[in-house]
Amino acid sequence: MTLTAQARGTIAELKESVARLHSELTRNELVVWTSGNVSARVPGEDLMVIKPSGVSYDDLTPDTMVVTDLHGKLVHGELAPSSDTAAHAYVYRHLPEVGGVVHTHSTYATAWAARGEPIPCVLTMIADEFGGEIPVGPFALIGDDSIGRGIVETLRATRSPAVLMRNHGPFTVGATARDAVKAAVMVEDVARTVHIAHQLGTPVPLSGSDVDRLHARYQNVYGQR
Amino acid sequence: MTLTAQARGTIAELKESVARLHSELTRNELVVWTSGNVSARVPGEDLMVIKPSGVSYDDLTPDTMVVTDLHGKLVHGELAPSSDTAAHAYVYRHLPEVGGVVHTHSTYATAWAARGEPIPCVLTMIADEFGGEIPVGPFALIGDDSIGRGIVETLRATRSPAVLMRNHGPFTVGATARDAVKAAVMVEDVARTVHIAHQLGTPVPLSGSDVDRLHARYQNVYGQR
Amino acid sequence: MTLTAQARGTIAELKESVARLHSELTRNELVVWTSGNVSARVPGEDLMVIKPSGVSYDDLTPDTMVVTDLHGKLVHGELAPSSDTAAHAYVYRHLPEVGGVVHTHSTYATAWAARGEPIPCVLTMIADEFGGEIPVGPFALIGDDSIGRGIVETLRATRSPAVLMRNHGPFTVGATARDAVKAAVMVEDVARTVHIAHQLGTPVPLSGSDVDRLHARYQNVYGQR
Amino acid sequence: MTLTAQARGTIAELKESVARLHSELTRNELVVWTSGNVSARVPGEDLMVIKPSGVSYDDLTPDTMVVTDLHGKLVHGELAPSSDTAAHAYVYRHLPEVGGVVHTHSTYATAWAARGEPIPCVLTMIADEFGGEIPVGPFALIGDDSIGRGIVETLRATRSPAVLMRNHGPFTVGATARDAVKAAVMVEDVARTVHIAHQLGTPVPLSGSDVDRLHARYQNVYGQR
Repeated sequence: MTLTAQARGTIAELKESVARLHSELTRNELVVWTSGNVSARVPGEDLMVIKPSGVSYDDLTPDTMVVTDLHGKLVHGELAPSSDTAAHAYVYRHLPEVGGVVHTHSTYATAWAARGEPIPCVLTMIADEFGGEIPVGPFALIGDDSIGRGIVETLRATRSPAVLMRNHGPFTVGATARDAVKAAVMVEDVARTVHIAHQLGTPVPLSGSDVDRLHARYQNVYGQR
Repeated sequence: MTLTAQARGTIAELKESVARLHSELTRNELVVWTSGNVSARVPGEDLMVIKPSGVSYDDLTPDTMVVTDLHGKLVHGELAPSSDTAAHAYVYRHLPEVGGVVHTHSTYATAWAARGEPIPCVLTMIADEFGGEIPVGPFALIGDDSIGRGIVETLRATRSPAVLMRNHGPFTVGATARDAVKAAVMVEDVARTVHIAHQLGTPVPLSGSDVDRLHARYQNVYGQR
Repeated sequence: MTLTAQARGTIAELKESVARLHSELTRNELVVWTSGNVSARVPGEDLMVIKPSGVSYDDLTPDTMVVTDLHGKLVHGELAPSSDTAAHAYVYRHLPEVGGVVHTHSTYATAWAARGEPIPCVLTMIADEFGGEIPVGPFALIGDDSIGRGIVETLRATRSPAVLMRNHGPFTVGATARDAVKAAVMVEDVARTVHIAHQLGTPVPLSGSDVDRLHARYQNVYGQR
Repeated sequence: MTLTAQARGTIAELKESVARLHSELTRNELVVWTSGNVSARVPGEDLMVIKPSGVSYDDLTPDTMVVTDLHGKLVHGELAPSSDTAAHAYVYRHLPEVGGVVHTHSTYATAWAARGEPIPCVLTMIADEFGGEIPVGPFALIGDDSIGRGIVETLRATRSPAVLMRNHGPFTVGATARDAVKAAVMVEDVARTVHIAHQLGTPVPLSGSDVDRLHARYQNVYGQR
């Protein structure tokens, strides 16, 4: 595959940022050992940058990152790509607005996924970030497009950038890999808080109109313009 | 706005201390990503120093801190102020004894807030620091004075420096920003301990007179004179 | 008070080790802000070395440690001693075999204390370290000998180096300050594990004779001779 | 005992790697104080390298590691071996495919062990790593071969590299010490997630055929070839 100098520069930058973003997974205690991964789409190319399979977070450097096409075929890099590459690739093929994907087995989000229950929208923070309940995707075996298809179909039906794949764990998406990492951090945070709230009773529900107003405001006003 | 040299010096000191106090929020695991903020009143001026909106804690330096008036209007700084600025400003306008305000979505305190339940005063540490149960404030949408008014009305009715805003999270106050941060740390600590105590039964209640005696002693005797 | 050169040397060493042992309280997440303290008896003197009141763990150095007599009266040091000094002093006056005392409000141990329930001996580690259930002491107000008396009377009735003071938190003792710190770490660890075991059912009991055999072996065989 | 130069070199390498692997126990919060240990078989010799008894993780260096024979008798080193040495040795004598053994009292795994309940296989991650439920071994007193025999008999009846010894804690095995440490990390992670999933209901079961397919794929495809 022949790449322009610009594409090569973009890939070099993405390898660095994707490698570094994995440290947010460990810092926020979303992963143990090698159990989670971040990828980024290469804008303008049918390519993605993703973590190599089974490599410790301590050993991730820009050079260890691998480049695949959007069917998960290795294009560049010396290591085998993450075993979740097919799921990431499916998402990029079917959701053109997505520039980053993250997968973890973070504890509380995975606990909701194990029961197959969505996380109810009972916190202003959930309304802000997820725009409603955080949905559950189907149980799917690894090895073909089942996981990717389950992610895409579930995300298309909601405003949430996160889906809890049943008996498996959360996948999150974003315009960039950093946004997808933020969603992975937030889904675990609210999964934990709502779990704990439920342990001693039932949270007060939020009305649909309050959820809508909070979501609209947060998506348009928050942060630096 | 023309400031005296003394006011400029005070602001410079507050920017440094407010920036640094945010590291207590991360160290005590009260926040994830950018989800909490500290502010300080500028003594003798109708001004406050507060965190900029949506900036990572790693990137906070004294120079990134912003100065607003007590209606939340930007006076000094290059970044937009925290989206919670209006609530902080309302508190400073209505509670003149308050010199610092902190807002987080810390897990256990927010779980009590999600159920709309106050934290009962069943530990000597709660009597010491909060002088009774830790109260719940009303549900309020962001965007006007609703949150600030809910905080102030709830705090005025108790001895507690912390209020659990319903479906949202804790706000704490203090004579200084450091005192407000201490209250934010303590409210999460006791929210967690009392939650866990309740999971396997019911804590033994403390009598009102014991709470009063503990609170009076702690407020007058603890620490260095 | 006139001290021998040897006593002065011993005190200098204890100030250093007691200051350093506080870092085990933070490392093991037994304390927040300034909410726990370590002391050591000065062997051969009616003196103890203890943490100053309300000072951050970051700011503790050997020079900030204070020396009091065994009634809690300041003998040496520029800061006021911990507000728990009277309880530590009472323990040293009445339990001559004790060389170190630790007090924390660690989360799980304090949760058992809030309910006034002893931690049952359902783990080999509890049999090893505590020789049976970890007992609850009475509710006692700070300000006189009530807390110290409650600790001593409870400890005398068991083999445990830890007591859960009701609605308050754990106190632990040991032949040295380091041993008391170890007991503080272990009591929180087993309080957490047994709490979690109880959340989904009932632990299998250990027989009294198995507890006795485990305790006897651990006290005589473990570690380096 | 006379060793070849090659054996001496292997032992030197194992002392270094076993010392270093203990830092994974602390990093993953599987142990407190001195409450867990790692060992490695010396390939081609009836020897093992193991942690010394009662030594802090901070103080572990390659030189402090001890070498014993496969009956736990000290062969090389200045310190007494771990009090769990007999259990490790029994495993090496009876399971020739095992090259590493780890023992901890990690919180959630030990909580399942306290109730004597296996961890059900309700997550893809459990199917991948453990091939089914994680079994409970018998209650056994320290001091003879009871613990080792309980580990070996339980492991032989399953595909799991982990066993929860009743009222005690997990033991894990692997082809290398690093593999056994990975299993110790994973058993605590899934013990925690499944515990939390159970707190608010019942996880959806996985079918036996799905577990078999996931396990077969993971054992053959994951990681770098």
